[in-house]
Amino acid sequence: MRAHGDVTVDELHLAQELAGSGATAASADIAEYALWLGDDALILSQQLGAWISRAPELEEDVALGNIALDLLGHARSLLHYAGSFDGRSEDDLAYFRDEPEFRSSWIVERPNGDFAQTIARQFVVATYMFELYSALRSSSDETLAAIAEKALKEVDYHRDHAVQWMLRLAGGTEESRARIVRAIGDVWPFVDELFRDDELIDRLGDAAARPSALRGGFDAVVDTVFHQAELDIPPVAASSAGGRHGSHATPLGHILAEMQVLARRHPGATW
Amino acid sequence: MRAHGDVTVDELHLAQELAGSGATAASADIAEYALWLGDDALILSQQLGAWISRAPELEEDVALGNIALDLLGHARSLLHYAGSFDGRSEDDLAYFRDEPEFRSSWIVERPNGDFAQTIARQFVVATYMFELYSALRSSSDETLAAIAEKALKEVDYHRDHAVQWMLRLAGGTEESRARIVRAIGDVWPFVDELFRDDELIDRLGDAAARPSALRGGFDAVVDTVFHQAELDIPPVAASSAGGRHGSHATPLGHILAEMQVLARRHPGATW
Repeated sequence: MRAHGDVTVDELHLAQELAGSGATAASADIAEYALWLGDDALILSQQLGAWISRAPELEEDVALGNIALDLLGHARSLLHYAGSFDGRSEDDLAYFRDEPEFRSSWIVERPNGDFAQTIARQFVVATYMFELYSALRSSSDETLAAIAEKALKEVDYHRDHAVQWMLRLAGGTEESRARIVRAIGDVWPFVDELFRDDELIDRLGDAAARPSALRGGFDAVVDTVFHQAELDIPPVAASSAGGRHGSHATPLGHILAEMQVLARRHPGATW
Repeated sequence: MRAHGDVTVDELHLAQELAGSGATAASADIAEYALWLGDDALILSQQLGAWISRAPELEEDVALGNIALDLLGHARSLLHYAGSFDGRSEDDLAYFRDEPEFRSSWIVERPNGDFAQTIARQFVVATYMFELYSALRSSSDETLAAIAEKALKEVDYHRDHAVQWMLRLAGGTEESRARIVRAIGDVWPFVDELFRDDELIDRLGDAAARPSALRGGFDAVVDTVFHQAELDIPPVAASSAGGRHGSHATPLGHILAEMQVLARRHPGATW
C-alpha cells in the first residue's frame, strides 16, 4: 500500500531498518545468492507464523511468533539487496515471483505437521543458519557481511530454542519421544541440500559461505544434541531436492498461494 | 509441554516475564475483570496473527505480527493474574475454557475481512485500549496498575499504526476510500459494548477503569481522525453484544477451535 504519497517515507524508513540497505547494487550472482538465503528465511517465516494461534502453550506462541518475525526481517534485508540488482522491491520479489523463481531449500517447505515435526525442522534449519551466518560475517561482500552479523544474534537464540525442545521431547514421555524420533526421520532426507555446493558458489568465491564447508559445524552440534538426547541419525537417503534451481515440492504452491493472494489481487496494493 | 520436569523453571521464568506476576492472588471480581481485558487481548492477537502470512506488504506483515505478539503478552499477564484466583494457569484459561466462559467483546471477534476491515477494527480497539490502560495505571489494584503501565507503551504504538492506515486508506484511491468507509460501517455497531458499565465495575470501584468514563477520550480521537480523513461516523444502532457475560457471536467458535485444538488433543500437552 505504497500508493499514498508516502513512498519516499517508506523507502527512507526501510533503508534505516534493513541491515545493509542502501548499499551499492548487487551483481547478478550476488542477487541470486541473496535469494537462496532470503527465500529460505521467507518461507520458513510464513510456516512458523501459522503456529501463532496454534502452539501448545501461550509461551510457545510467543517464541515461535518472535522467531517468525526475526526470519521475516532477515528475508526482507536479503530480498531488498537481491532486488537492488534489477530494481525490484522486496515486495515484488516476495509476492510476484512464481514457484520456479523461488530459491528456497526443500526443508523449509516441509509441512508444519505436529509440533515435533516443526521442532525437528527448526533444529536442522536453525543449526544450519547459525553456521551459515557465522561464516558469512567475513564475506567479501560488505552488505552480506552486515546482514549476517545482524542475523547471527537472532539465529543463535533460534538454535537454542530448538535444541531445548529436542531434549525435552526426546526426554519426555514415550509419546513425545516417539513423535520426535519420527519427525527426525521425516526431515533428515532434506538436510543434504543445505550443504550442497554449486557453480554459483564457485563463482562467488569469498563473497559466499561455501555450503559444504558448513557441514562440519552442523554435524558437531547434531552429534552433541543427539548424544545427550540418546537419538540416532536415521539411515535415510538424501532427497532429490533442487530448490536452489527452482524445482520445488508440492507444499510450496500452497504456501505461496496464501502468501501472495492479497498482494496479487490488488497489484501494487493500491486498490 | 510443561511435563518435562521444568515446571518450576517455566514458572520462575513466567514470574519474571509477566507484568505484575507473582503478586497476591486476585479476588473473584478482579479475576473476572482481568478476563474481560485479557480475553479481548487474546482473541484480537489470534486474529491479527493470521495476517502474518497475508499482509499486503512484508513491512505490514512485521507490523501486524508485532502487534499480535504485544497483545498476546498483555493477555498472558492478565490471564495469569485471573488464574491466581482459583489456581488455574494462563494456558488452562486460554485453551480449556468453552465459548460461554470467554469474556471478550464482540468487536475483537469480528472477522479480519479485507485489510480495511482489519484496520477499522484495529483503530477502534487500539483507541479504546489506549484510554483503558491510561486510566487503569491508577488502579487501586497494584497488579492491574503494573500491567496497564507496561501495556500502555505498546498500545500507544498500535493506535498510531491504525490511525496512519485510516488516513492512508481514506485519502488513497477511490477503491481504498470506499473500502475503509464500508469497514467503518461494519465495525461501528460493536463500539458501544466497549464502553458499557456493569455491576462488576460498580463493585470494583477504584480497582477498575469505568468503561463509560473512557468514552470521552475515545470520541475525541475519533473526531480528530475522522475530521482529518473527512469521514463520518455511520448512523448505525449498537449491537446486542453481550461478550462480558459470555454471549458471543458465531465467529468466536471458529477462533477458539483453531486456538484450542492442539492443547485439547493433548491435555496438558504432555503427549
